[in-house]
Formats: sequence, C-alpha cells, structure tokens
Amino acid sequence: MRYVVGIDLGGTKTAAGVVAEDGSVLITDQIPTLNRDGGEAILDAIALMVSGLLERATAMGATVDAIGVGSAGVINASEGTVISSTDAILGWTGTAITAGLTQRLGLPAAVVNDVHAHALGEAWHGAGAGAPTALMVAFGTGVGGSFVVDGKPLLGHHFVGGHVGHFASPLAVHNGAPLPCSCGHSGHVEAISSGPAIHAAYLREGGDASLIDTRAVFDSAKAGDELALRVIATAATAAGQAVGGLINILDPAVVVVSGGLADAGNLWWDQMEAAARAELLAPLASVAIVRAALGNTAAIVGAASLMFAK
Amino acid sequence: MRYVVGIDLGGTKTAAGVVAEDGSVLITDQIPTLNRDGGEAILDAIALMVSGLLERATAMGATVDAIGVGSAGVINASEGTVISSTDAILGWTGTAITAGLTQRLGLPAAVVNDVHAHALGEAWHGAGAGAPTALMVAFGTGVGGSFVVDGKPLLGHHFVGGHVGHFASPLAVHNGAPLPCSCGHSGHVEAISSGPAIHAAYLREGGDASLIDTRAVFDSAKAGDELALRVIATAATAAGQAVGGLINILDPAVVVVSGGLADAGNLWWDQMEAAARAELLAPLASVAIVRAALGNTAAIVGAASLMFAK
Repeated sequence: MRYVVGIDLGGTKTAAGVVAEDGSVLITDQIPTLNRDGGEAILDAIALMVSGLLERATAMGATVDAIGVGSAGVINASEGTVISSTDAILGWTGTAITAGLTQRLGLPAAVVNDVHAHALGEAWHGAGAGAPTALMVAFGTGVGGSFVVDGKPLLGHHFVGGHVGHFASPLAVHNGAPLPCSCGHSGHVEAISSGPAIHAAYLREGGDASLIDTRAVFDSAKAGDELALRVIATAATAAGQAVGGLINILDPAVVVVSGGLADAGNLWWDQMEAAARAELLAPLASVAIVRAALGNTAAIVGAASLMFAK
Repeated sequence: MRYVVGIDLGGTKTAAGVVAEDGSVLITDQIPTLNRDGGEAILDAIALMVSGLLERATAMGATVDAIGVGSAGVINASEGTVISSTDAILGWTGTAITAGLTQRLGLPAAVVNDVHAHALGEAWHGAGAGAPTALMVAFGTGVGGSFVVDGKPLLGHHFVGGHVGHFASPLAVHNGAPLPCSCGHSGHVEAISSGPAIHAAYLREGGDASLIDTRAVFDSAKAGDELALRVIATAATAAGQAVGGLINILDPAVVVVSGGLADAGNLWWDQMEAAARAELLAPLASVAIVRAALGNTAAIVGAASLMFAK
C-alpha cells in the first residue's frame, strides 16, 4: 500500500494526515498556521509537523513517498507557488510551496488551492465517489467551488477557476442597490448567501444586535425568530439558485454541497435544494444534490490524491 | 492532406462543407432541413447533399475519409443519437445520426450538439485558435455556450452541458416578477438577453408595434428611439453580467462571443463587454473577450474537427 501526506493549509490552522491509496486516513495532526510570520516560517512549522507524522507512520510500517497540499490563496499548480493571497496569511504570496517542502522533507510534492483539494477529496472518496464528474459548491465564510472532471479539477487558465460565488444573484440587493461583495464588486452570490452575509442581513434588517454571529442567527431562527427565518430563507434560496444555474451550465454527474451552511441542518438545506431544483432543465431534474461526506478530512484526502494520480 | 465533411444541421437548414485538416473549407453546400418529415427523411436528404460534395471533392483531388456533424437537439455524442429535440425538427428525437450516415455513405461519423460544434470551430481555427481553453457564448434566438478544454467541449453527464442561458439574471424581471424563459422556468439570462427577448421587451414597454422583429428594434435604436436604446442596453448588460460571471466560474484563456447580437454592432457589444468586465475578479481583468471569427462556417469546421481529432 502506498501512503501520501495530505496537507490542508488554511488561514488559521494547518492540518495534515497520512493517507493510504485506498483513501483511508491513518493518522492526523494539526498546528496553527503562522499567518503573521511569512511563507518560510509557515513551511518550517509544517515540515516539523509532517516529520512527526512520517516518524509515526514509519513506526506503523507505512512508508510515505510524497506530499500533496491544498492551500489557501490563488495557487499556481504547475509551478507549485502562491500567485496571490489575502492578508489572512501575511507574506504567503510568492511562496514556493512544493519546492520548499521537497527541500525540507526530501519528498516530491504537489499543490492546488484548498477548495479544489476539498472537492478532490469528496470526488475521490466522499460524496462524489464513483461519479465521472462532480461539482462541489461550498457555502461558508465565503462561497467557492470546483468542478472535478475525470479526477481533475478545472483549475482555470489563471488558476482562478471555481470562483462560483462571484456571479450576479437577483437576491443580492438591498433597497434596490446591489450588496457589496468580498471581491470588490457587488451583487454577487457570495454577498447574499455566505455565512457572514446571513448575519449581516439580520443586523441590517433590524434584528437583535446581541446575536454575535451566523450561528446565533440560526439558533434564533430555530426558536421562532421570524426575521432570522426570513434572512436564512433568502440566503438559502440565493444559494440554491446559484447551484441550479451551475448545474445547467456544467451538467455534473453529482453535486456535492459543502461548508458550514450545508452542515447547519434542514432549515437551510431544504430551501437551498428546492431553489436549486426549481432552476433545472428537464433532462437534469433527477441530478443528485448531496451533502459533503468527509468533513474536515476532505482537503487532506484530496490533497493526497494529487500524488496518487501521478 | 486529410479531408472530412462537416455538417451543420439546424432547425431550418443544413449546411455542409469539405474541410481540410488545416481548417480551410474547400467547398460547401446547403439544403432546407426536412423538419416535418422525420429523422430518416432528413438523413436521406443530407446523404444526397454529401454525396454531391464527395463527388466534387474527388474531382478536385481531395479524398474525404469521415463525417462530423453538429446537430440541433440534445445529442448523445457517445452513441451518436438524438436524446431529445424541440418541435422545430419533428421526429428528430431518437434518430441514430452517426449510424444512419455511415450506413448511407460508408464513412465513419461523429456528432455533437451544434452549439458545441460552433465552439469547436472557433476554438480550433477561429477566434479562440491557439488558446488551451475557450469559452464560447452565443446570443441569438436563444443563449447557449460551450467550454472547450484542450480541444474538447465539456458535453456534460446528460449531454446538456453548455446551457449557459439558464441561470438567474437580476435583470430578467418585469414589474417585480421574473420573466418566463423558454425552458419552462423563469428569470433566466436567456429571458432578458436573447434576440427575441429584446423585441418582446420593446413591445412590453409600449414601443412601436409596427417594429416586427429584433432587427427593427436595433434600426430604431440607431435612429434615436430611446426606448429601443434602453431595452437593448438592459439586454446587453444582462448578457455581459452573465459572460463575466461565467469567466469567474470557468477562468477560460479566451472568451468568444457569438450569435446574431454579437454581430449587431458596437451598440450591443460595448455595453455587453463593459458589463462583463465589471464582474471580473482581479486576476481575470485582462482576459480577452472577442467576437467570433468564422461566421456561418464555424459549426461546419468544428463538426469536421471531431474526426480530425481521432
């Protein structure tokens, strides 16, 4: 059995695991991402964690021969470098991830953006397993996605493919004006359907200011708060409209919906799915729209799959 | 030099041409599609036209060894059959296009939907030539498209991929209600940005009822008709929003915009392109958005390319 270390490198924490070629996860570990210290310090800390995993794996009789990474930021998967990154990870732009890890650990490495890694994991051994094509859409802090075709995500010409939260939504409006979006434009799907957008809408509409986050808005909705129910319904409808439109455009074999909102229960899910199905062209009416299955290990497994495919 | 016959099979006419492996078109012919007579009669008539082309090609010293078809309808490209078709071609559903042509003409054949053929032509020898990926979006009687990756269109799991006119548009509304769409749903891009949608909007808003089609609305706009200018601006903005959103989702190397509206002059084009660019994520700001280049021969050339790729 071959083993690969998969790394899920996010803005606040970095998780890693030893993944077997059957998709199972042998052992995992996690550290804070040193997001104020620059790329080399981040890679040093990750290499230290991975060294520990390699020792533990060896002790278990598992020999790891490669490293796969899913990283926050816009990632040049050909060069193994960070094209751009937000201030969530200072000094990340320009970091040579694969070369840096290979130098530190002596193993070949590959990297893609973390959303693509997440989708690869679900497509390989999660909710999309066995399907020739899988569209993954994640609704959480942001809205992102990935279309995996024959085991490979469509990365895009500038490695920006999969930004499925950045097209116009009829519901991303307030008082007739398009809502501002994280990308600098306005009126996009993410501006109405992300987790923070639900909290912002609740406060904007005059909701209880003591509710400090989106989770609190969901709790209040479950307790009967009509405004909370309404803003969640609008966000879920916008999310579903987006998913349905993407299905018409891409015609995937299966659609995997992921992220914090997909895990928030039927209140969001049922309205999202109904809105998605209301968009579908007749031949697509029966397409499977399923919850992600792998949870936190999806990106680790998907990152590892980059090297199993080689 | 190899030669393949490319066939562009539409609801009202069927055009064919002898295409050389360098993408040049040697000779062409055209017949009305026998759209009331059923699949076998249509194939009989096409085979007769193609026989004539084969004779002419032989006389010119060009030996044709295969047939490629771009056909209206939802096409099963693996089986070479028509999955479904509108009443525009009665009896087309279920027709075995490739088997029927091979039986009649003794040549191997392949078929895709005509929009994909059109995109393949532009990607191979038209406005997208040389680009590793090309997104084609056509605005005409309907709105459709195709994403060509490494010379192959993404056909979709049910061969429905590329229906880029069927996602929600913020502008596809009238008096607060979503506009009906040709697909049976409402509020979609096609419902506001297709050619017929422009004419319908003009009449709906109280425009001159003697203007009988979209072309007349464009002529009136050019003569200063403010309502005509406004409905064209809305349609072009909706078209551009859709194109921009698709670019963010797919990150193509080049975007080819096609169809009757793309050929209607700068009045539509400039507003479409401005609206598209207003949607783009920063790393995509400089993506090329270009007019289709091959005109009527795009689908013939693209259909032929199906067999050159084999």
